Amino acid sequence: MLRLTTWRWVPSFARGLVRDVRVRWALEELGLPYETRLIAHGDADFGGYFSQQPFGQVPVLEDGDLVLFESGAIVLHLAGKGTALMPEDPADRARVMTGVLAALNTVETAIVPLVEIDLFYADQPWAEQRRPDAEAQARKRLAELSSWIGGRDYLLGAFSAADLMMASVLRPLQHSGLVEADPNLCRYRDRCLSRPAFERALADHYADLDGTGPSQGR
Amino acid sequence: MLRLTTWRWVPSFARGLVRDVRVRWALEELGLPYETRLIAHGDADFGGYFSQQPFGQVPVLEDGDLVLFESGAIVLHLAGKGTALMPEDPADRARVMTGVLAALNTVETAIVPLVEIDLFYADQPWAEQRRPDAEAQARKRLAELSSWIGGRDYLLGAFSAADLMMASVLRPLQHSGLVEADPNLCRYRDRCLSRPAFERALADHYADLDGTGPSQGR
Repeated sequence: MLRLTTWRWVPSFARGLVRDVRVRWALEELGLPYETRLIAHGDADFGGYFSQQPFGQVPVLEDGDLVLFESGAIVLHLAGKGTALMPEDPADRARVMTGVLAALNTVETAIVPLVEIDLFYADQPWAEQRRPDAEAQARKRLAELSSWIGGRDYLLGAFSAADLMMASVLRPLQHSGLVEADPNLCRYRDRCLSRPAFERALADHYADLDGTGPSQGR
Repeated sequence: MLRLTTWRWVPSFARGLVRDVRVRWALEELGLPYETRLIAHGDADFGGYFSQQPFGQVPVLEDGDLVLFESGAIVLHLAGKGTALMPEDPADRARVMTGVLAALNTVETAIVPLVEIDLFYADQPWAEQRRPDAEAQARKRLAELSSWIGGRDYLLGAFSAADLMMASVLRPLQHSGLVEADPNLCRYRDRCLSRPAFERALADHYADLDGTGPSQGR
């Protein structure tokens, strides 16, 4: 049995962007049923939550007795269960792992400083001075990513966990227009995000946040 | 045959901190021999390098025909070759993967903004205003990490790839004194970094940078 833990409420800027969406997307691509456990920072049991997640973040995925965190580790763990997100060949699996890590540690890390300035720090005196360099760093990485994609549909042959993670880390840039400014990159992102599994994942994320979704069983 | 690609020269602030050190450390823990290929930004062949590494970063690891990048993906790939950095049990392997990703995406991402301010942006007008919050974020993560370690020697039973990566991401903080301010965390870091495999990895990193190391065969 798989159980996903995530927030029952988030501020409006975070709606749709919590990292449970990535894990839900992987679960949907693999056709794996799961329960959700919804928690709040103020829950009486939140202290206990740190025994599962030492940094107090979401999501956590319980796979039987195995308690996993870090959306990257969870997506790689789930991807290993089938071939929908990773080919069978061990060398191809290593390539997919490289793509997932590139999304999280090279692309997302170049995007987050810009997103944080725009979403969290816009009123700080330093933000205006810092922003041009943060935007330049993000643009540089996006240009390199677009070159890597080249004329292909996906990063590594068929759609894989690498594309799931790469399209996911691009999502918080929507307000900036940076992805839209590169038609090749924009087509790639939209190709990934138009998958029915992503649409179901996002709908379930909102349903749980709005209290209209099933909190158990699906 | 394993071949590691890294820089032949870096500016003084980066000496000892390039990400090839993590991969060399994993190779040493596993007792795997490897060649090094040393490149420079100005090398005539650098354009061709982007076909191996779309973001122009180091390290790259070639494992026969398989070309891998991202230090996290390379360390996980190498760790899977034996049991020195990952137990045999699949659930334990998933836990190690969670620890590696937590190092890279939760701890390192909270440390880098502070390190960048101190190493790259110290003379920027915004740096002084931004620094207190960046330091607070790093301190918060380090306190959570220290609680996670608790009274144990390593994150997950025996020394694993999770500890290799966690100790590695703490290294660029040395100038700040933040790790030293937490005796439990400091002992953990030093326990990891006193391993002979790390010492050999770091020595080989410097030897290659200084032109005194073997660039092929070892």
